[in-house]
Amino acid sequence: METIRFGVSLDAELLQDFDQLCTSQGYANRSEALRDLMREALESHALEHGDVAAVGVLTLAYDHHKSGLVQKLTEAQHHAPIDVVATLHVHLDHDTCLEVLIMRGQGNLIREFAQKLRAIKGVAHGKLNLTEMP
Amino acid sequence: METIRFGVSLDAELLQDFDQLCTSQGYANRSEALRDLMREALESHALEHGDVAAVGVLTLAYDHHKSGLVQKLTEAQHHAPIDVVATLHVHLDHDTCLEVLIMRGQGNLIREFAQKLRAIKGVAHGKLNLTEMP
Amino acid sequence: METIRFGVSLDAELLQDFDQLCTSQGYANRSEALRDLMREALESHALEHGDVAAVGVLTLAYDHHKSGLVQKLTEAQHHAPIDVVATLHVHLDHDTCLEVLIMRGQGNLIREFAQKLRAIKGVAHGKLNLTEMP
Amino acid sequence: METIRFGVSLDAELLQDFDQLCTSQGYANRSEALRDLMREALESHALEHGDVAAVGVLTLAYDHHKSGLVQKLTEAQHHAPIDVVATLHVHLDHDTCLEVLIMRGQGNLIREFAQKLRAIKGVAHGKLNLTEMP
Repeated sequence: METIRFGVSLDAELLQDFDQLCTSQGYANRSEALRDLMREALESHALEHGDVAAVGVLTLAYDHHKSGLVQKLTEAQHHAPIDVVATLHVHLDHDTCLEVLIMRGQGNLIREFAQKLRAIKGVAHGKLNLTEMP
Repeated sequence: METIRFGVSLDAELLQDFDQLCTSQGYANRSEALRDLMREALESHALEHGDVAAVGVLTLAYDHHKSGLVQKLTEAQHHAPIDVVATLHVHLDHDTCLEVLIMRGQGNLIREFAQKLRAIKGVAHGKLNLTEMP
Repeated sequence: METIRFGVSLDAELLQDFDQLCTSQGYANRSEALRDLMREALESHALEHGDVAAVGVLTLAYDHHKSGLVQKLTEAQHHAPIDVVATLHVHLDHDTCLEVLIMRGQGNLIREFAQKLRAIKGVAHGKLNLTEMP
Repeated sequence: METIRFGVSLDAELLQDFDQLCTSQGYANRSEALRDLMREALESHALEHGDVAAVGVLTLAYDHHKSGLVQKLTEAQHHAPIDVVATLHVHLDHDTCLEVLIMRGQGNLIREFAQKLRAIKGVAHGKLNLTEMP
C-alpha cells in the first residue's frame, strides 16, 4: 500500500498538548495517534450513515425546568421511527436530568433520531454511542 | 390464644367467586383464606406507615398527552423528600407510558410520595410495592 | 342481587388489629373492608390466569453472592417465553441486589415466568405487579 | 498565537477516505477536521484523568454464557469505588446482553472502574461516555 505524507497547520499550544497525550497513551509518534483518530472517526461515520442493524445508547442532560422540554422529549420518543427499548432517568440534582435511551434500528435512523432529540431547545449535552448488532 | 367468630355480609355472587378462588389456591376453607388477606393488609399497612428504612418500587401508567402531566411528574421527582434512585420509562404505545420508580427512604415517606404522584391528574394506574430493607 | 351472611373464625388479636386498620382507612364496617380485599384478590387472580395482554413489573431482591444465582437469573431472562423489555438493577448494599423487570405478554405466561424466577434458590423477595394493557 | 506546521505519514487509502469524510461533514480542509479530533481527544483525556465530579455512562456488550462473567460484573459493581447509581440491562438476543451503567464520582475513578469492567474476559464491547457535572 502506498504511503504518503501531508502537512497539518495548527497552534503550537495545541500541538504541544497533543504530543503529551500521545506520549502518555504510549504512541510511538504523532502520526500513529492521528491515524487512530482518523480511523475511529471513519468507523463511527460508516455506522451512523449505513443501514446496518445497530444498538444506540444516547445520553442526554438537560434542565427539566425549560418550558415544554420534557413534554417534547417524551412525545418524540413515542413517535420514534426506530425502537426506543427503554429510557432510564436519573435526577442528578434539583435542576438537572440525565436520561439514557437504549434504541434499536438502522444505524442511520438512530443517528437522525438522536440528532432530533439533541436539537430540542434546552438539551445541554447529547452523546450517542452506536454499536453494530452482533 | 382466644378464637372468636364474626359474621360477614355480601353478595352471593362475590362469595361464590371467592370460594372458587379459595379452592383453586388450595385453601382448606374460606376463613383461612380471609385470615391471609387480613394479615397481608396489616403487614402492608405497617410498612407503609412506619419509619423503617424501605425500598419502594412504584409503577405508574399514564397518557403522556395529558397537558402538563409529564412536567409535573418530573418536577415532583426532583423535589422528592425521599431518594428517587432511578426511573425506568417504557413507551408502551403511541399514547401510554409505563414508568417504574425505584425509591429509598422511610416507608411512610415513600408511601406519601407515591400517593402524591398517583394523585396527579391523568395518572391511570399506580401501584406501590414496598419492601423492608434487609 | 341476593345478600347472604357467613361466619369467619379467627384469633381475637388479628380481628382487633384488622378493626383498627378498617377505621384508619375510613371503612364504615368490617364487611366492607373484607369485600374490597376479596374483590382485589379475584381481580389479580383473573389477570394472572387469563390470556389477556398485560404488562408485568416484577421486583426481585437477592444476595448476589449465592452461588450461580446471577447466572441463572440472566439465562432465564434470555430464554423467557414472554418479552422481557428491560431490567433495572440497583445495588442496595455490598450484598443485596434489587432487580426490577418490565415484561410484556399474556398475563398467565408472565405470572408463570415470574414464579420461575422467584423459585430460584437465593431469591429472598419477589413481587409481581400485573396490569392489563390499555 | 504561533501557528506551526508538521507532517503526517499514512496510507493513501486512509487519507482518501478521511478527505471524503471531511467534505461530507462540511470542513473547509483537512487540518480543521484534524484539529477538532485532537481537541476532542484532549478534552476526553482531561476529564478521564482529572478529579472533577462527573457522571459516566458505560455501555457494555457481552455474551452471558461466558463462564462466571455475569457474576464477576455484578460483584465488581457492588464493590465499586464510585457510586453505581443504576444499571439497565437489555437482552438483545439469546446470547447477547447490553448493559448500561450510570455512575457518579471523580472522572478518573470512573474511568479506572470502567476499564476494570471492560477488562473482564468475555466483554466484547465497552464504551464510556463521561460528562462533567453541571
